[in-house]
Amino acid sequence: MEIEFIRALRNRLPPSPHLAIGPGDDAAVLREDGAVVTCDMLCEGTHFSLENDAPAAVGRKAMAVNLSDLAAMAARPVAAFLAVALPRHRVEVADQLLEGMLPLAEQFNVAVAGGDTNVWDGPLVVSVTLIGRCPDQPLLRSGAQAGDHLLVTGSFGGSQSGHQFEFTPRIEEAIYLQNRHQLHAGIDCSDGLSLDSSRLGEESGCGVVIDLDAIPISAAAKKMSDTTKTPLARALGDGEDFELILAVPPTEAETLISTQPLETKLTRIGTFIDRPGLWQAGDPPKPLAASGYEHGA
Amino acid sequence: MEIEFIRALRNRLPPSPHLAIGPGDDAAVLREDGAVVTCDMLCEGTHFSLENDAPAAVGRKAMAVNLSDLAAMAARPVAAFLAVALPRHRVEVADQLLEGMLPLAEQFNVAVAGGDTNVWDGPLVVSVTLIGRCPDQPLLRSGAQAGDHLLVTGSFGGSQSGHQFEFTPRIEEAIYLQNRHQLHAGIDCSDGLSLDSSRLGEESGCGVVIDLDAIPISAAAKKMSDTTKTPLARALGDGEDFELILAVPPTEAETLISTQPLETKLTRIGTFIDRPGLWQAGDPPKPLAASGYEHGA
Repeated sequence: MEIEFIRALRNRLPPSPHLAIGPGDDAAVLREDGAVVTCDMLCEGTHFSLENDAPAAVGRKAMAVNLSDLAAMAARPVAAFLAVALPRHRVEVADQLLEGMLPLAEQFNVAVAGGDTNVWDGPLVVSVTLIGRCPDQPLLRSGAQAGDHLLVTGSFGGSQSGHQFEFTPRIEEAIYLQNRHQLHAGIDCSDGLSLDSSRLGEESGCGVVIDLDAIPISAAAKKMSDTTKTPLARALGDGEDFELILAVPPTEAETLISTQPLETKLTRIGTFIDRPGLWQAGDPPKPLAASGYEHGA
Repeated sequence: MEIEFIRALRNRLPPSPHLAIGPGDDAAVLREDGAVVTCDMLCEGTHFSLENDAPAAVGRKAMAVNLSDLAAMAARPVAAFLAVALPRHRVEVADQLLEGMLPLAEQFNVAVAGGDTNVWDGPLVVSVTLIGRCPDQPLLRSGAQAGDHLLVTGSFGGSQSGHQFEFTPRIEEAIYLQNRHQLHAGIDCSDGLSLDSSRLGEESGCGVVIDLDAIPISAAAKKMSDTTKTPLARALGDGEDFELILAVPPTEAETLISTQPLETKLTRIGTFIDRPGLWQAGDPPKPLAASGYEHGA
């Protein structure tokens, strides 16, 4: 129900001439100046636990997930605005949040421009709004065409064992590819490879066929001792891999796969087709359930 | 202690070439494109109570307080980004928040561009980041000079009896004044007339003398039955009046007072002086304690 609820809310937002790209992509784009804006809130108990996760890791992640949204737009970050609700008995976490956040901000040349600091009787909430700018055209979710290949950076699955807090957002990779290669569409993998791939298809009016054997599965997913999920299931549905999922025209895709211009590996894991839906490659293709974390945008 | 704590946090934010105006004013200004950005978070139990306050009023206020921050910069709003943490058992408040927020957004031609929707086990949190643009130069807190007059719009005190949820942010008034008149500095009154006036002085390296008899006291403050505070004390310290507090050179101030170009009344309530601090007018001036809500930025 949650995803429908969020869609219903989003449908209540009236269209505006101020927006070149409105709600529904990884970030909004303002028409007047091309500013690319995204906003992600992390809530204690839902996105992290202060019992298990260091506040510095939470602070880093609050910045990193927003950076990953800008990567999905091929945008370069400029400034971040931080709003926090601090538990009254643990206000010192604010310092630790910054300890994790500021080095990542520095690495990506982001100004942390303040925001709003509140102390309350509830759990910790960290909200970051990040503003960036696209050196080229923004990379959208909606440009994929039937025949495009589905390419991904890095590997998938098992992000809970550490990657979710330690990943480096694919800002540089996305900007490099958008600048030198022809990409049709892109999204970052936050909720699950299968779910986010299906979103890319849906927003583009296409279907997606995934070759399960081609999916690069992370070492973490293979190593995880909890055997209720296979490594493949983890790769398809764990989410928080924060890799790029791209729709690339066939010739361009072949160039990228053969030349491997990034430090991280690019892998072709499927194709876009006319028929809507998510499919598992085979003869004939079989429907594939999209698994992942359906919290909405 | 809270204000020192927030100052300490702010001091940890490194300066950045991306920021023309950094943390410490009513909003930040980005150097590259002049975007003016502010961010305010409302937390259940601290800023409102769902037992007493309608969610629509909370949604309206979440937008209005940010609009008031842009008014203090003489900026026109463009787009708002909304992040919410919804109590699991009351997700329907999301709809009601929008009911209160969207008409105000429409009134000021603000795109509500989505953001992040979360459902959790904690109380309601509503965070709005608002991006605007200055038709002229931004109005800062730091430009007041000794000799300037202290002018205010509207009246003060008793905002808890309704005004805090119903006020109209002084966007049009601020832009009109900044465009046609010479203002030296400005702030919006969110935390208390005396406290916010003293901030204007402090940021400008001046002191402020307030003529207590000249303060326009709201009808609400005069009517309030709780007699533990006088109407004057309410005007000085209740806060959430969301009126403009301005530093204006003497000749310009006289023109404004005599011509009254706004629909709302402009009142001269004091002067800026060389000697730091907040003072009560008299011969000699006496120190005046700054009262109000010291939650920080």
